[in-house]
Amino acid sequence: MAKRKAAILGSSGMIGQRFAHMLDRHPYFDVVAYCASDRSEGKRLGELWRLSDIELDPRLGKEVIQATNPNALVKEGVEVVFSGLPSEVAGPIEDDCAEHGMGVFSNAASHRMEPDTPILLPEVNPEHLAALEVQKKRRKKHGFVCTNANCSVTGLALGLKPLVDAYGFTDVNVATYQALSGAGHPGVPSLDILGNVLPYIKNEEEKMTVEGKKILGAYQKGRFVDSPVTIQACCARVHVRDGHLEAVFIAGDDIPDREDIEKTLAGFKARPQKLHLPSAPERPIIVMEQPNRPQPKLDSYAGTPARARGMAVSIGRIRAERNCLRFYLLSHNTIRGGAGGSVLNAELAYKEGII
Amino acid sequence: MAKRKAAILGSSGMIGQRFAHMLDRHPYFDVVAYCASDRSEGKRLGELWRLSDIELDPRLGKEVIQATNPNALVKEGVEVVFSGLPSEVAGPIEDDCAEHGMGVFSNAASHRMEPDTPILLPEVNPEHLAALEVQKKRRKKHGFVCTNANCSVTGLALGLKPLVDAYGFTDVNVATYQALSGAGHPGVPSLDILGNVLPYIKNEEEKMTVEGKKILGAYQKGRFVDSPVTIQACCARVHVRDGHLEAVFIAGDDIPDREDIEKTLAGFKARPQKLHLPSAPERPIIVMEQPNRPQPKLDSYAGTPARARGMAVSIGRIRAERNCLRFYLLSHNTIRGGAGGSVLNAELAYKEGII
Amino acid sequence: MAKRKAAILGSSGMIGQRFAHMLDRHPYFDVVAYCASDRSEGKRLGELWRLSDIELDPRLGKEVIQATNPNALVKEGVEVVFSGLPSEVAGPIEDDCAEHGMGVFSNAASHRMEPDTPILLPEVNPEHLAALEVQKKRRKKHGFVCTNANCSVTGLALGLKPLVDAYGFTDVNVATYQALSGAGHPGVPSLDILGNVLPYIKNEEEKMTVEGKKILGAYQKGRFVDSPVTIQACCARVHVRDGHLEAVFIAGDDIPDREDIEKTLAGFKARPQKLHLPSAPERPIIVMEQPNRPQPKLDSYAGTPARARGMAVSIGRIRAERNCLRFYLLSHNTIRGGAGGSVLNAELAYKEGII
Amino acid sequence: MAKRKAAILGSSGMIGQRFAHMLDRHPYFDVVAYCASDRSEGKRLGELWRLSDIELDPRLGKEVIQATNPNALVKEGVEVVFSGLPSEVAGPIEDDCAEHGMGVFSNAASHRMEPDTPILLPEVNPEHLAALEVQKKRRKKHGFVCTNANCSVTGLALGLKPLVDAYGFTDVNVATYQALSGAGHPGVPSLDILGNVLPYIKNEEEKMTVEGKKILGAYQKGRFVDSPVTIQACCARVHVRDGHLEAVFIAGDDIPDREDIEKTLAGFKARPQKLHLPSAPERPIIVMEQPNRPQPKLDSYAGTPARARGMAVSIGRIRAERNCLRFYLLSHNTIRGGAGGSVLNAELAYKEGII
Repeated sequence: MAKRKAAILGSSGMIGQRFAHMLDRHPYFDVVAYCASDRSEGKRLGELWRLSDIELDPRLGKEVIQATNPNALVKEGVEVVFSGLPSEVAGPIEDDCAEHGMGVFSNAASHRMEPDTPILLPEVNPEHLAALEVQKKRRKKHGFVCTNANCSVTGLALGLKPLVDAYGFTDVNVATYQALSGAGHPGVPSLDILGNVLPYIKNEEEKMTVEGKKILGAYQKGRFVDSPVTIQACCARVHVRDGHLEAVFIAGDDIPDREDIEKTLAGFKARPQKLHLPSAPERPIIVMEQPNRPQPKLDSYAGTPARARGMAVSIGRIRAERNCLRFYLLSHNTIRGGAGGSVLNAELAYKEGII
Repeated sequence: MAKRKAAILGSSGMIGQRFAHMLDRHPYFDVVAYCASDRSEGKRLGELWRLSDIELDPRLGKEVIQATNPNALVKEGVEVVFSGLPSEVAGPIEDDCAEHGMGVFSNAASHRMEPDTPILLPEVNPEHLAALEVQKKRRKKHGFVCTNANCSVTGLALGLKPLVDAYGFTDVNVATYQALSGAGHPGVPSLDILGNVLPYIKNEEEKMTVEGKKILGAYQKGRFVDSPVTIQACCARVHVRDGHLEAVFIAGDDIPDREDIEKTLAGFKARPQKLHLPSAPERPIIVMEQPNRPQPKLDSYAGTPARARGMAVSIGRIRAERNCLRFYLLSHNTIRGGAGGSVLNAELAYKEGII
Repeated sequence: MAKRKAAILGSSGMIGQRFAHMLDRHPYFDVVAYCASDRSEGKRLGELWRLSDIELDPRLGKEVIQATNPNALVKEGVEVVFSGLPSEVAGPIEDDCAEHGMGVFSNAASHRMEPDTPILLPEVNPEHLAALEVQKKRRKKHGFVCTNANCSVTGLALGLKPLVDAYGFTDVNVATYQALSGAGHPGVPSLDILGNVLPYIKNEEEKMTVEGKKILGAYQKGRFVDSPVTIQACCARVHVRDGHLEAVFIAGDDIPDREDIEKTLAGFKARPQKLHLPSAPERPIIVMEQPNRPQPKLDSYAGTPARARGMAVSIGRIRAERNCLRFYLLSHNTIRGGAGGSVLNAELAYKEGII
Repeated sequence: MAKRKAAILGSSGMIGQRFAHMLDRHPYFDVVAYCASDRSEGKRLGELWRLSDIELDPRLGKEVIQATNPNALVKEGVEVVFSGLPSEVAGPIEDDCAEHGMGVFSNAASHRMEPDTPILLPEVNPEHLAALEVQKKRRKKHGFVCTNANCSVTGLALGLKPLVDAYGFTDVNVATYQALSGAGHPGVPSLDILGNVLPYIKNEEEKMTVEGKKILGAYQKGRFVDSPVTIQACCARVHVRDGHLEAVFIAGDDIPDREDIEKTLAGFKARPQKLHLPSAPERPIIVMEQPNRPQPKLDSYAGTPARARGMAVSIGRIRAERNCLRFYLLSHNTIRGGAGGSVLNAELAYKEGII
C-alpha cells in the first residue's frame, strides 16, 4: 500500500513533537507539513524542541513550521492529520480538516464524547473504528475525526481490558500519581510542586469515569453502549517528568489468585499485535515481578520493538485477596497516553482500509 | 499535679528530636535525659539537629546527649520515657525500661501487636488505655509500654473514626503519597527518588490493615477485638519532605451526601479535646473547601493551638456518590504520625492517672 | 514618634505578601491599605496567600485588597508606600505616589539607576539617604522613591562591605545558585527545572555589576560616585524555593589569613544596629564554622531578633589563600533581598527623620 | 590488530556499569569478566542495573558477575582492566592487577598523584602516556595503572586546554553545580538535597587544583611538571542526576573578544580526533549560542558519533571582557568525567601500541 501524506497540528507543543518523532521515517505515513500557530511560523522544529528525553535527529530539527491552514494542506495532498492541539482550540480546526476530507487523529478532548466519534484504543476497542464510517457520511470528502483517550485512562483501560473480559470486574478505584508533562509547557509552576503533591487535576477524574465507560463499552447498531465498568478516581500531580503511575483497586466477590491474574495480563494480545502494527508493542502489558516496580523513572519507556517504545503498560505489585485485587500500573502519558495513541490509531485505520 | 521527669530515647534521630521539640517547656513533663547510642554520647543536641522545619531553641540545642541506660534513668528519677528508637532495636530496650518501672511511650513498631499493649490514638480509642493496667501487673514496678500507630494509619484512622461511628463503613481502599522523612535519615537515596515515585514501602501496607483493625477495634474483657473495618492499601513514596497524603475510597450501599459527611468530620471532637490535653488540636479534623487541598507543602502543620501544630488531620476534595465516598487526607507523619502521637498518649495517661 | 500610615502595592504577589507579613504589628508603620490590580480587588489576603513558609495570621488574612489608586491613598492619610510591584509596571505608579507626596520604598528595578534615587542598603550606604532630599525637591508634596537592590547583589554587597573597607578588595567573581521564588509566581515552569540548572537569568549579571558599583560607592556633592569594586557574575537558577547561595572569589595581592577575615566579617555592625532598627539583625553577617554550610534549606532564615528573621547574611567555607579569598554566602532573596530590604530602608528613613 | 580481552572491576556500581555499557561490542576490547565484591558474585548484571538513562541490552543484562580475583583474570587471558572501584578499596586491587601484568585503566583517585602514573586526558596530554613505559619497568609482566581525572576537573581541563595554549591564561576560578550521580549510590540522602544545595564536597576543590596542575602540565625527562595554571574552586552539589555544570572565570590582562574565543574553542581537535578513536567526539568542545545553555538536563549527553555520546564538553554564555572571561561549561560526570574517560584512555593506549 502507498504511504499517506500526513500533517501534524500543534508542532510547537509537547504532543506535536512526540508526533514528529514517532512519525519520522514511518512506514505508512509521510509527514509533509509541520503546522503550528502563526507565532511559530517559519521557525525550525529544532529551535522549539521541548522533549528532553529525545535526541532530536538534526534532519528532523531542520523542518520548518508552517501556519495551520487546512486549504493549504489539501493542496499539498495531505490525507491524514495528527492533532496535538490544545483542547481549547482543537475543536473547530479539526472539524475544518475533516470537512476538507482529511482523516484527523486527535489527542484533544474536544470531540471525544461525541456520539459518532470513537475514542479508539486498538487493543481494547478496535471495533469502534466502524463509527468512523458513520461519521464520514456526515462530512464532506470522506474526512473524519478519531480521538485517543485522556492520558490517565488510556493505560488503565488497557490494563483492565483482559481482566474485565476474563473475570467480569466492574468496580474500580484508582489513585493517580501523574507526571508534569501531562500539563504541557509552561504547565505547573515549579514553586507549586517542589516538595509537594497537588491533589487536583481539573476534569481529570470525571474524564476517567466517562471516557472509561465509552472505551471499554461496545459499538452496536451504530451507537456506543457504555461499559458497566465504573472507574472512581482520585487524581494528583507529582514531581515526575513523564509517566503516569496509578494505584488500582478492583473489588470482586471471588478474585482469582495472583498467578492467574498475572497470566491473564502477561498473555494479553489483541488486534494491533495480530496485524503487526509498527507502533504496537509485542506485549502490550508487561508484568513486573520485582517488589518495587514499576517506577516512572525506570519503566515509562517499556515496549518493544523500537517504534513501540513507551507504548506498553507496566503492571507490578499485584496483590490478590478474596475481595480486592490491587496493583500499580504505569504508562507513558505523552506516548501511549498521547501522541503514540493516535499514531497507533492511524496505523490501525490504515491497515483496516479506513484511510 | 506534679510534673513527671521524662527521658527521650533515640535523641539523635528525627523522631527523637521531634520529641525534644514537642516536650520543651511541657506542662506535664520535664525532660531530664536525652539518650542515644554510645556514638552520640557527649554531643550536644544542636550538633546533631536534623529537623530543618524547626528553629532549634539555643537553650535546647545545648542539652548533652547521654548513653541509653535504664538503670541510670531510674536513678535520675525518670518516670516516663519517650522512645524514638528504630524498630530494629527498640524492643528489648523499651522492655528494660518498663521492667525498671517506667512508663514507655513508643513510636516503634516492636510492641504494637502484642496482646496487652495498646496502639493508643486518644481521639479514637482512649478506652484502650485500660490495657496498660493489665500489662503493668505483668511488669515490675508498674512499668509499661504504650505505642502509637504507624505513621500512615494514624491519620487515616483518625479521619475514619467519625465516619465509621456515624455510618458503619467497613470497606476502605487507600493509596498513599508518603513523605521522605518517614524513612528517617539517611533513608531514601536521592538518586532513587529524583523525578520518581517508589511504589513500595516494606511492610507498610500490611501494617495499615493490621494496625487499623486493632486501633479502630474495641477493648473488651481484657482483650483487643478487631474492628470489622478493612483497610486495603497501596503505599508509595513521593518527593516530599513531610506530610503523608492519602487518597481514600470508602465503599457503601447508601453514602450520605457531601454536606452530611463534611459536618460529621468537621464536628468531630473526642476525649483529648474534652480534657484539653496540651497537644490536642481544638479541631482534630479540618475540612478544606478549596478545590486543590490539602497539599503536603501547605497543610501538613495544621492544628491549633501552637502545641498542637501538625496534630490535626486535613481532609479535602470530598466527593460523595451513592456507592463510593472519596477524599484526600493529609497528616504530618513525624508529628501526629510520630512523636506527637506518643506525646498525646502520655498526656492522656497523665490526665487519666495512669502515670 | 507617631506611627506612619502605610500602604502596600502588589499585595497579591510574593513580595507584597512579604511586606504584609513583615509590617504586621510594626512599631513604626500602620498598614491601612493592601493594594493590587483590579483583578484582585475585593479579595481577602488569605485567599491569595502564596508564602508557604509563613503561617498567615487569620486576622491579617481577612484584610481586603483594594485597587491601586494614589489619590485614594492620600485621602486615607497614607504617608509611606511599600512597593512590591513587578518592574514592568512599577515605574509610573511609584512616580505617581511620590508626586502625591508619599515616600515610596520599592523593590522594583525601575528607578534604581536614576541619578537622584538611592539603592539603599542601611548597613552599607546609610549616607545615600541624603539623595532623597535632593529628589524630594523635584517632587510635589515631599514625595520620593527609595529602592532596595536586586536580590542577588544585596547579600553580596552586605558581605563585601566590611572586607572592602578593611582590605580594599576590588576584584570579585561570583557564581550564584538562585532560588525559584526570585522569579515570582508562576515563574519557572516545573518541567524546565526538575533535575536541572538554568544557567541564565535575564539581566541579572548586569544588575549585579552596575548596582554593586552604586551601592558600594559614595554619595558626594549631590551625586553618586561608583565604587572601584567590580563584581563579575555568573547567575543560575537551581531547584530551591528560597535563599540565594553564592560562591564568591575575591582576588588580592596579599589576602589576610582566615581568622582575620572571619573576625572582620563576624564583628561587622553598622548604623541599623546602632539605631536598633526593628528589622535590623543583631549580627548582620553570621560566620558559620561547619564544613558544609550555609545551606539554603537550613540557613536562609538566619537573623535575630524575630523581626530580623531572614535579614542576616550567612557566610561559610572561608578559604583564604595568598591571592584568592573564597567563600559561600547565603541570603534570603525575598526577605533581605526583597521586602525586608525596603522595610529596613523605611525604618532607617523614619529614625533619621526623612519620613 | 587483535582485540584485547578485558575485565571490569566494580561492576555493581554506577561507574562499572557505565564501563559495561560503553565497552559493549567495542572494536578494540572484549569484556570477558564482570567483577565485583563477593556480595554480588553470581548475580546477573541486569539485577543490579543502576543507570536509569540507559536501556540495558538484555544480552548484556544476562552477564554473570564474578568475584574480583586477579589470578583468575590472568587465566582467562585478560590483558586490560577497567576499574570502577571506589577509591577506598581501589589501590591494592589495581596494584595487584598491574603486578599480574595487566594494564589497568582506573577511575579511582588512589593512584592519580603518584609520580609515575599519568592522569591521562587524551585531548589534553596524550604525551603523558609515556609515563606508562617508566611505570611498566617497575612492575612485573608489563602491567601498569593509568588513571582518568576527577569528574569535575576533567571537563574543565578539556575546555581550558585550547584557551591556555592560545592565550596563556593561568588564573581560573570555578564554581561547580555537581550532579548527584557523582556521589554514587546510595550517595546523597534525599532529605539533604530536596530543595537545597550542599556547598561542600569532600576533597573535591583540592583535587581540582592539584589534578589540574598535573593534567595541564608537561611530561619531561621522565617526570611530570606542573602547569602554571591555578584552578581555585568552590564545589557544590545540586539537585541534578547527571552532568556537572561549572561557572568559569578566567582572569587576563587583555582577553580577546568573544568571536575569537569561540573560534578557538569550537575549532579544537586533538590526538583522539586525529586517530579516530571510537569514543572520541568529533568535536570535543561544543560551543552553544543559545542564551540559556548548556543545561544538565538537555546537554549532558553531547557528543557524536554514538560511541562518543556524553564525551563532548558543552560551553555557552561566553562573555569576554577586558580582564575577565566568563562562561558556563558542562560535561557528563560519569561518562567523560568517569568511565568514558578511561575507555578513551585505553583506546589511545591501544592505538599507540602500549597495550
